[in-house]
Amino acid sequence: MDGFVSVGGGSAIDTAKVADLITSHPAPVMEYVNPPIGGGRKPPGPLAPHLAIPTTGGTGAEATTVAVLDLPDLKVKSGISHRYMRPSQGIVDPELLRTLPAEVVSSTGLDVVCHAAESYLSRPYDTRPRPATPDDRPPYQGSNPVADVWSAKALEYGGLYLRRAVEDADDLEARGLMGLAAAMAGVGFGSAGVHIPHACAYPIAGLKHAYQPPGYPDDHPFVPHGHSVIVTAPAAFRFTYEAAPERHRHVAELLAGGPLSDPGPDSLPDTLRALMRDVGAPTGIAELGYSEDDVPALVEGALKQQRLLAVAPRDPDERDLTHILNASMRNW
Amino acid sequence: MDGFVSVGGGSAIDTAKVADLITSHPAPVMEYVNPPIGGGRKPPGPLAPHLAIPTTGGTGAEATTVAVLDLPDLKVKSGISHRYMRPSQGIVDPELLRTLPAEVVSSTGLDVVCHAAESYLSRPYDTRPRPATPDDRPPYQGSNPVADVWSAKALEYGGLYLRRAVEDADDLEARGLMGLAAAMAGVGFGSAGVHIPHACAYPIAGLKHAYQPPGYPDDHPFVPHGHSVIVTAPAAFRFTYEAAPERHRHVAELLAGGPLSDPGPDSLPDTLRALMRDVGAPTGIAELGYSEDDVPALVEGALKQQRLLAVAPRDPDERDLTHILNASMRNW
Repeated sequence: MDGFVSVGGGSAIDTAKVADLITSHPAPVMEYVNPPIGGGRKPPGPLAPHLAIPTTGGTGAEATTVAVLDLPDLKVKSGISHRYMRPSQGIVDPELLRTLPAEVVSSTGLDVVCHAAESYLSRPYDTRPRPATPDDRPPYQGSNPVADVWSAKALEYGGLYLRRAVEDADDLEARGLMGLAAAMAGVGFGSAGVHIPHACAYPIAGLKHAYQPPGYPDDHPFVPHGHSVIVTAPAAFRFTYEAAPERHRHVAELLAGGPLSDPGPDSLPDTLRALMRDVGAPTGIAELGYSEDDVPALVEGALKQQRLLAVAPRDPDERDLTHILNASMRNW
Repeated sequence: MDGFVSVGGGSAIDTAKVADLITSHPAPVMEYVNPPIGGGRKPPGPLAPHLAIPTTGGTGAEATTVAVLDLPDLKVKSGISHRYMRPSQGIVDPELLRTLPAEVVSSTGLDVVCHAAESYLSRPYDTRPRPATPDDRPPYQGSNPVADVWSAKALEYGGLYLRRAVEDADDLEARGLMGLAAAMAGVGFGSAGVHIPHACAYPIAGLKHAYQPPGYPDDHPFVPHGHSVIVTAPAAFRFTYEAAPERHRHVAELLAGGPLSDPGPDSLPDTLRALMRDVGAPTGIAELGYSEDDVPALVEGALKQQRLLAVAPRDPDERDLTHILNASMRNW
């Protein structure tokens, strides 16, 4: 076996990462899955070469060190994270994005915007406990000057090109630059990390299967990843605002393409809501099939993602997550 | 032989690159040197691992795919360029910059600023002839969206931190961020490329050995690399302005830290001259030992650097280079 070539969205690329891992270093998959759900075993050495060719402008999986896994028996998503999981090379070709349905461009593009914002707003790496050795450094280290460069550029591109990419399949400039933004954001969040919206997204995608997303194959209901993360982003960033007001304002300005007339705690949530509405995102988690009765189970699922919540700029407890999820029922 | 560790400035790191090349793939060095001076042979495969630890905030050699060589018999500098020349890893540690003399911080920092500006202003990659295969792509491809991100960030850091880094050896924030800027700019120019100031710098450093730089060991006269490139930058960017006025204005704004009151063709040259003066750069090539009688020989040397001049945004002929060098005798 010489190596792997993956062609597809984040699921296809992540599947190839895991296949590469368990053929290069055979062991049951769950041993490698992040704790507390899996054993957290580190890959003992580099994997076989993996060339990743994304066909969505979204996950940045071609650039990240993580593979996300759906664990249907546990009704939860988790991941395997290690720098050896990063594909050896990627090819980001705008032509491959030409036939994507608008809804897929919307969801994957909002994923880019959301994880770039989460990365940029993550707890600064130098305020976290210093690892004993470089090998003990977690894959998600918190915001840092190198990740910031990529996250900021992806946010700028998201503000400039996502609406155009959704509106017009033939706008290859916009679709291609969203593909580039996805790869850039992947480099950024692959080192800085994501936190509250992604922690909430795992149970939102895993707990119920009641939502049939427009524009996707109609053979099974599911919540597209980008829409599962963005729905709680306005409330999550309203909650984290007080930890880093300047940075929240900067994210809003990058998305808006310039200075805000009246920057405040609601600037970023409002800027995100406007973008979500313009690109046809679901209005909130109610539209995805959840009611307030489901919130305790969603909170329980989110709290399992301690690896993610550890890089949130402000620690959310059960009550905070309950508030964020309730506030995300309908965003407009 | 398991690999190489280099500790030092660009010369030390580049020496390790070449040692790695000729021990990994034995052949006379000149076979690998860039044409027309050398044979332009490509390394046939990856080199042994190389860990580069820079002790100046300047060359970015830890991040670039090129090794620069002084060829004293030919009185010229040239290089070996290939992606396999890039060190496997780098460690950029602010503590290593604490004891650098101010003049070395000035020269290496101006090198960062100059090659970041040259990269950002280089001919866009998609206006150059398309290579037949990826392997035929030249190491210096011209400006592109990924290199731009790094070049712009390095310029911003240069504007914010170079004066502070020169003034105060204990300002480790400023010195550390100039070290980071150097690595970032190295990634940028390692893919985009440098052009007129670097092409002129090669003969400026190689032709005469009359300048004894303050702050450097006094055992032999030479022109520090950063000062050899920056002295022609104001005139070079005045010449290239008309090819991309918006981009020249943007470079000036990045260095100045904000919008310019009256942007025009002299904004970038003036911004550079102010920075050079503040950090104690030589006033021009006259101070380095050259007179107008030397200009034809300098032009001849610069014209040998066709690999560099090919990425200039505006093609300079012999007359243009003569004008640039004469205008660079004294910058203020």
